[in-house]
Amino acid sequence: MPSVTIPVNRPVDASLREQAARMRDEFRRQGTLVVNIVSSPGAGKTTLLEATAKHWGGRRRIAVLVGDIATDRDAERLAPWVPVRQLTTGGACHLELPLVQRGLADLNLPNLEFLFIENIGNLVCPASHDLAEHLRVVLLSTTEGDDKPGKYPKMFRTSQALVISKGDLLPYVPFDASRAVEDARRIQPELATVTVAAHRGEGVAAWCELLEAARSRMLALSPAAAK
Amino acid sequence: MPSVTIPVNRPVDASLREQAARMRDEFRRQGTLVVNIVSSPGAGKTTLLEATAKHWGGRRRIAVLVGDIATDRDAERLAPWVPVRQLTTGGACHLELPLVQRGLADLNLPNLEFLFIENIGNLVCPASHDLAEHLRVVLLSTTEGDDKPGKYPKMFRTSQALVISKGDLLPYVPFDASRAVEDARRIQPELATVTVAAHRGEGVAAWCELLEAARSRMLALSPAAAK
Repeated sequence: MPSVTIPVNRPVDASLREQAARMRDEFRRQGTLVVNIVSSPGAGKTTLLEATAKHWGGRRRIAVLVGDIATDRDAERLAPWVPVRQLTTGGACHLELPLVQRGLADLNLPNLEFLFIENIGNLVCPASHDLAEHLRVVLLSTTEGDDKPGKYPKMFRTSQALVISKGDLLPYVPFDASRAVEDARRIQPELATVTVAAHRGEGVAAWCELLEAARSRMLALSPAAAK
Repeated sequence: MPSVTIPVNRPVDASLREQAARMRDEFRRQGTLVVNIVSSPGAGKTTLLEATAKHWGGRRRIAVLVGDIATDRDAERLAPWVPVRQLTTGGACHLELPLVQRGLADLNLPNLEFLFIENIGNLVCPASHDLAEHLRVVLLSTTEGDDKPGKYPKMFRTSQALVISKGDLLPYVPFDASRAVEDARRIQPELATVTVAAHRGEGVAAWCELLEAARSRMLALSPAAAK
């Protein structure tokens, strides 16, 4: 079998992990909570971010980096409500740190209180990539079925919060929210959960409280405790 | 930067492609239409296959290979209705041919009329892997939004049929089926489409007719023309 000599990419991965850790610490010192939002396609990430921006109005300094494989449809939806940059992967199934860094440089908004990164709609691959977030949030829509956590375990294991979306469709679909949460907490016992129907604004206040609490916990960390 | 010598994996890929082409031809000669079903998590692949098996009863010789990252929940759902084997990837985000080959050997059912392969719930990565199918079918559920084809173009470009699932939820969600089809056909003009509410049996007869027509077209191919 033919062979070629190529660079080992382990040092690159290690460097990305180190960069992510440094960025996370720098964001913390600036008071910016970085939130990486992951889910299947169409679970409602963009709708939740629209609702979040509307709920807070101008009261919080927030911005969004929104990932897609192709098109800038999500950035167009968010642009009326919040500073946003589209990150287009051109085929790749997840966001990686260098693309996030380019988006941040382009956004050029220091001293945010919350930076949201909307990942590619994919319940598998984004689980393996650290985007310097403090909080990873997985959305599971009621229409996807309550059996999904056990079937996509890494995403739930690496998340700190579960948002059950499309709560308004519960009367029409076979979805038992307590069963979904139980399944998810078997994988990640510390998972915080909230149910929303974001396009109606339902659950959005509770979701924003969850975000505020996460930011307060981050700010309470002493530099020593934070590593 | 350190480097190592590793085998080039292009020959492996080429070999997999050749194997897939040979298997596709062998299945055709046996009269077996191989259908690779792809979608986001929770779009209703398993429910469509349950409904297909119920619709045909014992009138067609069919079997299912069902892929999941973890758990055998889908195989358990299908087992009462159809011969099935679970393919568990243990983390991988798509099915590949060797796992399909192992499932086929375990299933050991020659002379099927239809072999269904239910892929991992992922609208990105499975687009790049040939599983020896004659027909790739992408499911898009009405709850995912009608903007998805353009955002996940490769999956729609490499499919021959689009099933719009969860048609019963149309009154409750902002989904314009004609807009979704138009978006998809901008990418793949030849895409056949059918709308179903599979758990109610709605649209299942039309879906099965689509499958029968695809099998008839395959059988009509002469060995020379089939190449």
